[in-house]
Amino acid sequence: MNDSSVQASTQKLLELLEELAAFTTPGPGVTRLLYTEEWSQAQIFLQEKMAGLGLEVSIDKVGNVYGRLSGRDPQQKVILTGSHIDTVVNGGKYDGAYGIAAAMIALQDLQRNFGQPQRTLEVVSFCEEEGSRFPLAYWGSGHVTERYDGSEAETCIDAEGVTLQAAMTESSFLQGVTDENGARNDIGAFVELHIEQGIILEKTDTQIGVVQGIVGQRRYVVKVSGIANHAGTTPMLMRQDALASAVEMLYVLESAAKTAGEPLVATSGKLEVYPNTPNVIPGEVLFTLDIRHSEEDELERFCEKLLAECNEIAVKRGVTLEVTSVLHTVPAPMDTKLSAMLENICRQQVKTYRMMVSGAGHDAQLFAPRCPTAMIFVPSRAGISHSPEEYTSPEQLVAGLEVLTAMLYELAY
Amino acid sequence: MNDSSVQASTQKLLELLEELAAFTTPGPGVTRLLYTEEWSQAQIFLQEKMAGLGLEVSIDKVGNVYGRLSGRDPQQKVILTGSHIDTVVNGGKYDGAYGIAAAMIALQDLQRNFGQPQRTLEVVSFCEEEGSRFPLAYWGSGHVTERYDGSEAETCIDAEGVTLQAAMTESSFLQGVTDENGARNDIGAFVELHIEQGIILEKTDTQIGVVQGIVGQRRYVVKVSGIANHAGTTPMLMRQDALASAVEMLYVLESAAKTAGEPLVATSGKLEVYPNTPNVIPGEVLFTLDIRHSEEDELERFCEKLLAECNEIAVKRGVTLEVTSVLHTVPAPMDTKLSAMLENICRQQVKTYRMMVSGAGHDAQLFAPRCPTAMIFVPSRAGISHSPEEYTSPEQLVAGLEVLTAMLYELAY
Repeated sequence: MNDSSVQASTQKLLELLEELAAFTTPGPGVTRLLYTEEWSQAQIFLQEKMAGLGLEVSIDKVGNVYGRLSGRDPQQKVILTGSHIDTVVNGGKYDGAYGIAAAMIALQDLQRNFGQPQRTLEVVSFCEEEGSRFPLAYWGSGHVTERYDGSEAETCIDAEGVTLQAAMTESSFLQGVTDENGARNDIGAFVELHIEQGIILEKTDTQIGVVQGIVGQRRYVVKVSGIANHAGTTPMLMRQDALASAVEMLYVLESAAKTAGEPLVATSGKLEVYPNTPNVIPGEVLFTLDIRHSEEDELERFCEKLLAECNEIAVKRGVTLEVTSVLHTVPAPMDTKLSAMLENICRQQVKTYRMMVSGAGHDAQLFAPRCPTAMIFVPSRAGISHSPEEYTSPEQLVAGLEVLTAMLYELAY
Repeated sequence: MNDSSVQASTQKLLELLEELAAFTTPGPGVTRLLYTEEWSQAQIFLQEKMAGLGLEVSIDKVGNVYGRLSGRDPQQKVILTGSHIDTVVNGGKYDGAYGIAAAMIALQDLQRNFGQPQRTLEVVSFCEEEGSRFPLAYWGSGHVTERYDGSEAETCIDAEGVTLQAAMTESSFLQGVTDENGARNDIGAFVELHIEQGIILEKTDTQIGVVQGIVGQRRYVVKVSGIANHAGTTPMLMRQDALASAVEMLYVLESAAKTAGEPLVATSGKLEVYPNTPNVIPGEVLFTLDIRHSEEDELERFCEKLLAECNEIAVKRGVTLEVTSVLHTVPAPMDTKLSAMLENICRQQVKTYRMMVSGAGHDAQLFAPRCPTAMIFVPSRAGISHSPEEYTSPEQLVAGLEVLTAMLYELAY
């Protein structure tokens, strides 16, 4: 792109991100939960915007919005690009929204500069990825890729007790949508542009991350049951202290994770103590484990060994252990050919880049087993995401847009 | 006592405990928080009951209720016995209430059998000991012994935001109480009968615990501040994980406590994590430390060393540590002469007994520095207390009553 068209694209991109950020519940940052009114307004806005760009708009049964730029060869499968419109509570302006906004501008630029593509290009705004309102994630891309068939909506309940089904039925955006099926078998490639949400690109002063793979995840809820007792009158050796037991387990977790080394990460992010009173020995502790690795074998071996060690600790201390698996995803390698194309583009555009693993989950991981899939990262300031502090500079945002645009050109023209 | 009078006393004691247990908010066990309506009703009930026994009743400015049996020699200081009427939330029938009920029956029996005592005997129902409603404890005995002067009531606030002062002003029981001063300098000895709230007497099949001393306590709130971050995208070695840091501190705490050995106990009973989300590295953790020992030097040395180690852990991990001391009591040795008298009584009554340290705090520790003080324990089933499951058998309750009655006879007749 020349300087004036870069300026114009930067302007359009920043404007679009600000416009999207305005669809939020009041409070710090952006909060746009699935099927809420602000979510509906955001999807309506995008629908109108896509139509304004001359794209053919469609909405599927869960509220994914597509904008289609038909190619000359209708026999060839679609090149899909985009990301998710939902956010976490008090999230940032870029997570998800950037991938949609940049995709729309890329399609607009491509159409203006090169006319109709050979292969059909589509931009998608997935209805949901974060799992912030309902205890399930990838509701949008999961429908497209047949992870979900919709039956989950009857039993899945948000914090207010509303079922996912009721939320869909009541959503103003889904009124009148007649699409019966969300699944698609006509996708030839998926490309997602996203902020890194980590600190690696910033620390290494790199413009572009070419994602080689998305980690697999295991998430567990661990319940340790001991005996609540008086903190003053119960000798140390007569205790079945649920918190002291959990502490030993978490101490082992961290040591083992450090020993295993990168790219393994292991985190306990949530821990609750009962009765949670200063002078009562805890009788019960619930904590979560979140463990990730890009290699399935390594991930499985680590989790098995850790849970066996937790069990030994429980037996030794006379407490009981209950482990519930709440999330199990396998690593999703990106397509090596597409990744090599992205590397080439970065070299041609004289951009610094690095091959990297994504420690966060993304819609792209749902597509990876079904079609060639690629992911492009841009830096996140201080690695901060899921926060009103989330920030990527205009120059960094445009660098990602340029790589995406070139990639879509190569795939579709 | 002969069999029929033992039976009569047992009956009266059990009845009185049941009557007191009825003054509670609905829910499991007994909940009778300071200055609530059920608390007022319980104190009114005791006031009337004491008057019915021919005792001269008085109420001091914080709502401690006294029943006085005047002695022949008004020059001699008062022999005081009793315990506290308040409970924890969902507590038991015996904690506190037993010491009041048994004292009333002891005075009734002594008066009936031996007439007017030489020295004045008084039973007291302290308004508060547990610290369950307001974040301060010993509000009753603390006034009598001048730990408190009442100025604390303006700034001390309960969970609903009510100040202690407002709770006092609104209490129906304190309407019309004109006493201006709670402090007393006319107490010659204090004797408290209480359930053990621990498992030692039951484990050793012993009827009576003669308390040699009450442990000193240190209670701290520790705040660990790290940096909240994405659990997937932040490598293990780039984390400032507040929970992992707290875990290492608590792991050290337990090891050090086990190494120190009895009677030291160290507990973390309360721990809270922020933001407490499975996929976010914790940015902040608050936890409590409760550390007790019967020797001040040992207690002080242990706490100093532990806090220094916590500080080293914080520095090593790049997190900040804020330690607030919220309770600091020194060990309270009981009067050796009074304890020897209790031992003698147990031998005379052919009861099994053991000298022991109280790991729990009691009103007696406020009196110990001011006048000869003694404490008698009876067993708690399975060591359970502060629970609806709290239980001591009628035989065990009466054994304690018999020892208390004999002790008061020796002191006052």
